[in-house]
Amino acid sequence: MSTDFFPATEASRHAGFAGNRLDRCATRRDDQGWIAEQAAHPDCRYVLFVEDSAVMQMDGETPVSPLMTRTQAKRLGAKPDTLVFLGTDEGRPRFAAATALDADSLAQLGRYAPVSLRGLAMQDRMSAHDLGLLAEGKSLAFWHFRHRFCANCGSPTMLAAGGWRRECATCGAHHFPRTDPVVIMLVTDGERCLLGRQARFAPGMYSALAGFLEPGETIEDAVRREVAEEAGLTVGAVGYYASQPWPFPSTLMIGCFAEALTTAITVDEDELEDCRWFGRDEAQAMLDGVHPKGLSAPRPLALAHTLLERFLSEPA
Amino acid sequence: MSTDFFPATEASRHAGFAGNRLDRCATRRDDQGWIAEQAAHPDCRYVLFVEDSAVMQMDGETPVSPLMTRTQAKRLGAKPDTLVFLGTDEGRPRFAAATALDADSLAQLGRYAPVSLRGLAMQDRMSAHDLGLLAEGKSLAFWHFRHRFCANCGSPTMLAAGGWRRECATCGAHHFPRTDPVVIMLVTDGERCLLGRQARFAPGMYSALAGFLEPGETIEDAVRREVAEEAGLTVGAVGYYASQPWPFPSTLMIGCFAEALTTAITVDEDELEDCRWFGRDEAQAMLDGVHPKGLSAPRPLALAHTLLERFLSEPA
Repeated sequence: MSTDFFPATEASRHAGFAGNRLDRCATRRDDQGWIAEQAAHPDCRYVLFVEDSAVMQMDGETPVSPLMTRTQAKRLGAKPDTLVFLGTDEGRPRFAAATALDADSLAQLGRYAPVSLRGLAMQDRMSAHDLGLLAEGKSLAFWHFRHRFCANCGSPTMLAAGGWRRECATCGAHHFPRTDPVVIMLVTDGERCLLGRQARFAPGMYSALAGFLEPGETIEDAVRREVAEEAGLTVGAVGYYASQPWPFPSTLMIGCFAEALTTAITVDEDELEDCRWFGRDEAQAMLDGVHPKGLSAPRPLALAHTLLERFLSEPA
Repeated sequence: MSTDFFPATEASRHAGFAGNRLDRCATRRDDQGWIAEQAAHPDCRYVLFVEDSAVMQMDGETPVSPLMTRTQAKRLGAKPDTLVFLGTDEGRPRFAAATALDADSLAQLGRYAPVSLRGLAMQDRMSAHDLGLLAEGKSLAFWHFRHRFCANCGSPTMLAAGGWRRECATCGAHHFPRTDPVVIMLVTDGERCLLGRQARFAPGMYSALAGFLEPGETIEDAVRREVAEEAGLTVGAVGYYASQPWPFPSTLMIGCFAEALTTAITVDEDELEDCRWFGRDEAQAMLDGVHPKGLSAPRPLALAHTLLERFLSEPA
């Protein structure tokens, strides 16, 4: 396997949701007075979330902006116990929160609608920075929404540190936002790459294999275990290529190339509907949307696309 | 900066706690009958934990083995609601649990004592595989111990899937073990490397900077943010080198090299007691334990050691 698969250039920079350039001001989060000043700043703006969707200001059917004033945020039902300071954008503070309103209630307020983050990312309408900001906000607002109680003792917890911690007054436990590492790997035998499809994928779409890294594993061991489980293949060398924040709900995608030492596939039918080898020409046709049988590959938003594109850029 | 810092060889393989070669049998965890069969297997063994320590069978002052029979595990107070199936070791099942006993109660049973995982790793007495198995077990047993309640609704949760899930009967939420990604980076300006010390370190010890990756970040962005926060330096290229499971309580250490674009340091005094540049000769003396002022670097157990060793193996 060519070591050209493992370059020093930063492939992560162009991945979907990776464009966040906020200054997180992480060392100031514990300063309540400073956080309150940020919230009172005239240029402070809020991004709000309903499940996997961002509340967007609409112009008819077109989402225009996710940035709301404090007055708008209040009117749109921002929940104070999910409020997170995301950082500053050239000095302008940005916060995130979950909203208590559902899609119908939002629609009644006029000019607002929940739009899925995946949809926004695929529409190519928003800047990489705004998409990155929404990814950070969505992961954190959702974490607060689903972690209102102490896992150690069951008591209600309180938001602290500008939303970067929850504290339990009963047992004293501190809880921090989760980020779950997931390995996603393009397995190759040099000439071909391995792609699989889950039953929930769009018809005809194939992607790179992926799975959660587990406690007690290195990145490389997680890649080998997942490929063995899902496809029954033995993998040798594993090389990191790029990473990506993926806000569904809050994972770190760790993209790798992996060298197959065996080629006979045994599909784990609980996980995958199909899994097979694809030659370069076929994979390129899928990426280009011109596959004769209509098969397709993930869009540029996904790290699987980044990995495939890199693989196909190598001379055969 | 030489791209030789970013090799395709697998540096992770030799990191501390990375030697776990269990077959996790992840696809069988939901089969309760199969898990019960594993627990009843005559070669089944248990590893038990008190906080950061493994319960060891002792020969006088010497820890001999962490593997206990089912009878021993029961006698040593293994808590059933923390019991995790770790995997099989050449067909022999391995489980982990937290124990309800403290160090004094254990001592009264004779021939048992809690020994810290760091201590065991530094004594060089156990195989890399057994240390890896303990790392997996400790992260999971501790997670159960501290996550007995549902973060979504506050109700008690039940262990499921052989210990790889907790379920809430009240709200239906499923909870999974945490693995928190941490970036650890050796910043270099080509000739020198940046090391810092926290007040809690052993006297004279300096290490690579490190910090938790946050929601909405790539690995590379997390490295740049942490270095900017802790040392006030601007970092350019970041290259992944190796990863390591670190069971305190359950992190994935992601080791990188990072290229400094500026060299003037501003130390974050809340995080670090000191932070400065070290030339190759001085860093080598620290690694070798022959620094004239007694300064030292982390032991081979730590990924910081792996990074330093790699840096110093480069021609100046």
